[in-house]
Amino acid sequence: MKFMNYSRKNAPNVVRLGCIFDGTCFDITKAIGDDLLEFPRVAFTIEEVLHVKDGLALLEEQLGQLKRSSSGIQTFLFQASDVRLHAPITRPQKLIGVGLNYKDHVEEIKAETPKQPLLFGMYANAITGPEEAIIVPPVSRQVDYEAELGVVIGRRARQVHVEAALEYVAGYTIINDVSARDLQFSDGQWLRAKSFDTFAPIGPYLVTRNTLRDGDGLDIELRLNGKTMQKSNTRNLIFKVPDLVSYISKMMTLEVGDVIATGTQTRRFS
Amino acid sequence: MKFMNYSRKNAPNVVRLGCIFDGTCFDITKAIGDDLLEFPRVAFTIEEVLHVKDGLALLEEQLGQLKRSSSGIQTFLFQASDVRLHAPITRPQKLIGVGLNYKDHVEEIKAETPKQPLLFGMYANAITGPEEAIIVPPVSRQVDYEAELGVVIGRRARQVHVEAALEYVAGYTIINDVSARDLQFSDGQWLRAKSFDTFAPIGPYLVTRNTLRDGDGLDIELRLNGKTMQKSNTRNLIFKVPDLVSYISKMMTLEVGDVIATGTQTRRFS
Repeated sequence: MKFMNYSRKNAPNVVRLGCIFDGTCFDITKAIGDDLLEFPRVAFTIEEVLHVKDGLALLEEQLGQLKRSSSGIQTFLFQASDVRLHAPITRPQKLIGVGLNYKDHVEEIKAETPKQPLLFGMYANAITGPEEAIIVPPVSRQVDYEAELGVVIGRRARQVHVEAALEYVAGYTIINDVSARDLQFSDGQWLRAKSFDTFAPIGPYLVTRNTLRDGDGLDIELRLNGKTMQKSNTRNLIFKVPDLVSYISKMMTLEVGDVIATGTQTRRFS
Repeated sequence: MKFMNYSRKNAPNVVRLGCIFDGTCFDITKAIGDDLLEFPRVAFTIEEVLHVKDGLALLEEQLGQLKRSSSGIQTFLFQASDVRLHAPITRPQKLIGVGLNYKDHVEEIKAETPKQPLLFGMYANAITGPEEAIIVPPVSRQVDYEAELGVVIGRRARQVHVEAALEYVAGYTIINDVSARDLQFSDGQWLRAKSFDTFAPIGPYLVTRNTLRDGDGLDIELRLNGKTMQKSNTRNLIFKVPDLVSYISKMMTLEVGDVIATGTQTRRFS
């Protein structure tokens, strides 16, 4: 299942929740409004679905029933040209970055392979939608891109073992971990360079874990004005998704909707 | 006005909102429950008071009326020995740390005076109450204290000038920016060292800006087992409260309830 937050071109400020399940595109906001879904709480955001116990399974079951019945599936379809896609997660308590986590990147810059994940902080203010502009701040002369696999937490996680860590993952998304490279190196601490408003475009989709499993073996590529600048595969991650979730949960309690940006690859690939 | 979140010893899990105003201690949770306060939304947390436009002034006005009337002020009093004090702010979107911000500390370690504030990230998971235990993680051998003035944001702040910055401050609190010093230096990035659960005891009070003004000239002291380990005054801050709020607001939109830990002083003072 793929979730997306979107608005229709004729009402750009109304963010609706949609999903693609079993080949069909559902307008969850409308389905709830029309009493076609029964959910234990108002579920207009992905986070609220995740807060319901077994919320994803419950939603899939009901969408399956809805599809099998004849109750107006057509009304839930939308055309890609009529919508604007937004970030699937907008207010995480934590947006945690991981540095130097691709084998090819470490080899490229001849760094030592890190013994443990290097973490840094960012906040929800940086999040913007995949179709929005990144605002380049006047204090930086070197704003740079980093395409990353994003992990979205689905259950509160505290002191979780690597073997159990995937159970706490709701799914995956894409993050551009935009960085003011000059400020990153002059500050030493990376918060400022990474946390300007709009410096974390996310989305468009949150793909659930039952589709992407452990997030391993996924191609990841960044194009700038049509030219490929980064190209790798998550199999090159030094610390994999379960490693990261477990490691972080041993220091910080992770909450529903928290996002981990798993690190970036070789840059300026050509 | 001073706010506090507290629970009664006989119901330790029920967190109530109280305040001390004009020499009287009010149980705001009870006053709202008894329909003695009229507020445009349920206001059981300080953040919710702040979310109401002119919420602090509205509350002060109503508490003043309540005090002048004879409607059972006694029921709002509580004895310090009957209560447990909690963190006044528990779920900020941002908990931003400032490094190396005291003149005496910079002189002590013979560092250069920074040209701009050095920021680092922490998250709400670290927050705990002033009467709770700090849990020392097994991975660190060097857990250390840092007594700091905390600034609580009262209004959304974006691109704010220094001259106007105080208008965005709700008030002040105290933070112990607990740090796993060994991990701080081995990681380089400070997130992990500062963000373990319970590493940011906050409170007990949020003192509003109309009492403490710009937060300048305040004595700040840390005692460990009765021995004074840090002692300074916020007049020694290199970047003052308005500087910090303005500086940060030029990169990140600050939200109601966000907390800035303004940096620590000379350590092991004796």
